[in-house]
Amino acid sequence: MYDHIIELVEERKYKEVRRELSNYNAADIAEILETIIEESGINAAIIVYRFLPKDVSVDVFSYLPSDDQVEMIHGITDVETAYIIKELDFDDMIDVLEELPANIVDKILESTPKNERSVINTYLNYPDDCAGSLMTPNYIKLGSYWTVREALNHIKVVGHNSETIYTCYVTSHSRKLEGLVSLRTLVISDDDLLVEDIMQTDLIDINVYDDQEEVSDKFKKYGFISIPVVDNEDRLVGIITVDDIFDVIEEEATEDIERMAGVLDDSNTEYLDMGIIRHARNRFPWLFFLMMSYILTGAIISTSEDILSKIPALIVYMPMLMGTGGNSGSQSATLVIRGISVGEIEFIDSIKVLWKEFRISFLIGLSLSLFTFVRVFIEQSGHDNQMQIALTVSFAMIAIVVAAKCIGALLPLIAKKIGIDPALMASPMISSLTDMVSIGTYIVLASAILGV
Amino acid sequence: MYDHIIELVEERKYKEVRRELSNYNAADIAEILETIIEESGINAAIIVYRFLPKDVSVDVFSYLPSDDQVEMIHGITDVETAYIIKELDFDDMIDVLEELPANIVDKILESTPKNERSVINTYLNYPDDCAGSLMTPNYIKLGSYWTVREALNHIKVVGHNSETIYTCYVTSHSRKLEGLVSLRTLVISDDDLLVEDIMQTDLIDINVYDDQEEVSDKFKKYGFISIPVVDNEDRLVGIITVDDIFDVIEEEATEDIERMAGVLDDSNTEYLDMGIIRHARNRFPWLFFLMMSYILTGAIISTSEDILSKIPALIVYMPMLMGTGGNSGSQSATLVIRGISVGEIEFIDSIKVLWKEFRISFLIGLSLSLFTFVRVFIEQSGHDNQMQIALTVSFAMIAIVVAAKCIGALLPLIAKKIGIDPALMASPMISSLTDMVSIGTYIVLASAILGV
Repeated sequence: MYDHIIELVEERKYKEVRRELSNYNAADIAEILETIIEESGINAAIIVYRFLPKDVSVDVFSYLPSDDQVEMIHGITDVETAYIIKELDFDDMIDVLEELPANIVDKILESTPKNERSVINTYLNYPDDCAGSLMTPNYIKLGSYWTVREALNHIKVVGHNSETIYTCYVTSHSRKLEGLVSLRTLVISDDDLLVEDIMQTDLIDINVYDDQEEVSDKFKKYGFISIPVVDNEDRLVGIITVDDIFDVIEEEATEDIERMAGVLDDSNTEYLDMGIIRHARNRFPWLFFLMMSYILTGAIISTSEDILSKIPALIVYMPMLMGTGGNSGSQSATLVIRGISVGEIEFIDSIKVLWKEFRISFLIGLSLSLFTFVRVFIEQSGHDNQMQIALTVSFAMIAIVVAAKCIGALLPLIAKKIGIDPALMASPMISSLTDMVSIGTYIVLASAILGV
Repeated sequence: MYDHIIELVEERKYKEVRRELSNYNAADIAEILETIIEESGINAAIIVYRFLPKDVSVDVFSYLPSDDQVEMIHGITDVETAYIIKELDFDDMIDVLEELPANIVDKILESTPKNERSVINTYLNYPDDCAGSLMTPNYIKLGSYWTVREALNHIKVVGHNSETIYTCYVTSHSRKLEGLVSLRTLVISDDDLLVEDIMQTDLIDINVYDDQEEVSDKFKKYGFISIPVVDNEDRLVGIITVDDIFDVIEEEATEDIERMAGVLDDSNTEYLDMGIIRHARNRFPWLFFLMMSYILTGAIISTSEDILSKIPALIVYMPMLMGTGGNSGSQSATLVIRGISVGEIEFIDSIKVLWKEFRISFLIGLSLSLFTFVRVFIEQSGHDNQMQIALTVSFAMIAIVVAAKCIGALLPLIAKKIGIDPALMASPMISSLTDMVSIGTYIVLASAILGV
């Protein structure tokens, strides 16, 4: 998509690059820089970056992924760094500082005024995944006794430095949040009304230590474009704006999906940026635990080596039964986990869900079972126990599908009830369990039908 | 959380219910109504709904899930329905109409003015998952030759009926989009400037037939709070606001997750609302296809019934090897699929990804393999082939983990390259494939080491 620009960079036609880039939005230019860093290295990217108009350049910087930001800062001068840090929106600046090594942060902080420095330090100390790490202190405060006209004039003056001006806040002397008024309300209200007459007082706020998932849930539920953040004494300490929530939603979805595959990762590091030791450490625990769980499955088989060595044809169908059981269970588990995570399914729905899965699995199991009967019957033609083997495998199929789907649906619900993340009850966990059930069922049926 | 309100409803203390509800935001009241519908039925919910102040009631209605909205409409009078439809935001109204049976929609449309009716009909005709189905025609249009003062006065007059007033649009005579200006810019600009002097002309827009996933991608990328929608002739036809995007992101994530579990569902129906036939139809195709793929796995086993029936101890470890292979492959596939879907990993990264997975899987495979050797060696003490069996199983373990992780990483990349949704290459598909590879590897190693 940006091929011609990359070519111009490689041919060092920087003037043309500059002219080309002027057609793009800051977010697009950041994407182009990312590609340049990947294909031509950081130095080429810095040259291009320096050709950008100053006011655009900081915006572009704020859209870069954090590892590229850090690389850039290592490559540019201290004066350039100081300019970027000074001009970035407060919350973007905090994000950048969090990623930089301590010695660089110290150097940057030395050159900032003392009062700003202490605010920055407070922000740097909030844990990574909490509301505090997402907020900005640059919001607009209004006096409750101001008129609409005074409020609008005030906004005109201070609006430049504020993250958003679309929601303004009214606080008491003790900095407690008393109300909020949207710019929309201000603009459509009569100029002589008082702020306290038009402000909203039924407030939805977020505690500064609340998890970022709660923050995104509130944005989703209420459809706000900003939410006030308060400390434990209910004092207003900052606001979070909606544009910072998309990343949170993406991170939370990634966390869910990774857990559902048995990968335990508490960082937000991207796949390619993570070292292999770290990757291995994130994946080993579940693999090991699940591998160990197969000791039980192995034990079930041990008790029936007799029947399997007498009728080895039975072994041929073991992987199919285990695989189909695992897949059936995963489908149900995934749907129920997703239902829980979007708030549709709760523990009280367990009976409803189980009854549903029972009927669904019976339908599916029956169809698969009929196919299986025909297939096995044909394959085993000539075998002494042709009919019995076909019956064993096809009965096992329906029993396994029904059992797997019910287990798959029930486990996430139980996990939720006892306070474990339901996402952990997805495919790997469920298939290990259903493998055990599948083998057990198969062997019991084989003994019964083949009478060995 | 809302237990005491539900109790008051059950005791029919509606006055107290009304007083209690006045403390809540419309989104919360909608949640309470949902609970009442579930626990006490739709009639109790309608009684409570009728106790709400009129201006709040429509807001509450707009927050209800669509199936509850439809139930409500069936339960209330035509006059009440007409009031709700009239007062809802345009895009919410379209959503409600889309869910209602045709005869009710016709009755509603009969009572709306003719010009509105044709707009509504146009909107009802946009396909379900495209930008057109998310947009609203209620945006603010400004003249490019207006002064800031005139623009603000205009907004004061028409602002009430507009979905958002934070971005205003300037169009040419042929309704082509020429520029936009944010309310922020208007408020902080000098009153005598002209709109055309302050408007932004580097515009990001969306075609009315673009998929909703592209819409949410643009919101994520640029951090806007609204985006203009244009038709094929570049004429402005509506806008989409950020609060409607959260649902899209959730729907798209659900679609991804469902596909990763082998569930093919092209509706947005919730789990509990979907009939069992539909559920079964969504899940059957992949289960059947994957079950059939085990014919190959079965064939591999058939060729080696000999060795398995001579040394039945080998069968004991088959499920563990297949299970661990499947789990290893799913982990890698999931991480790569997620990386592709958030735009971090592309096809050109294939070599990098494969080399990474190779080293990770070697580390993990080696550790699991050592544990396995010890376990099998102890378990098989006394067996004639104690050492050989332990060696076979532990060599198979490392080979299978490495193969599974490389397959798991590669398949989604190939799928992406040839234009198949990578999400389809997740757990069920990968485990069926790795099962085949696991069994094959195991049997080859067994023949080689045990020399049967």
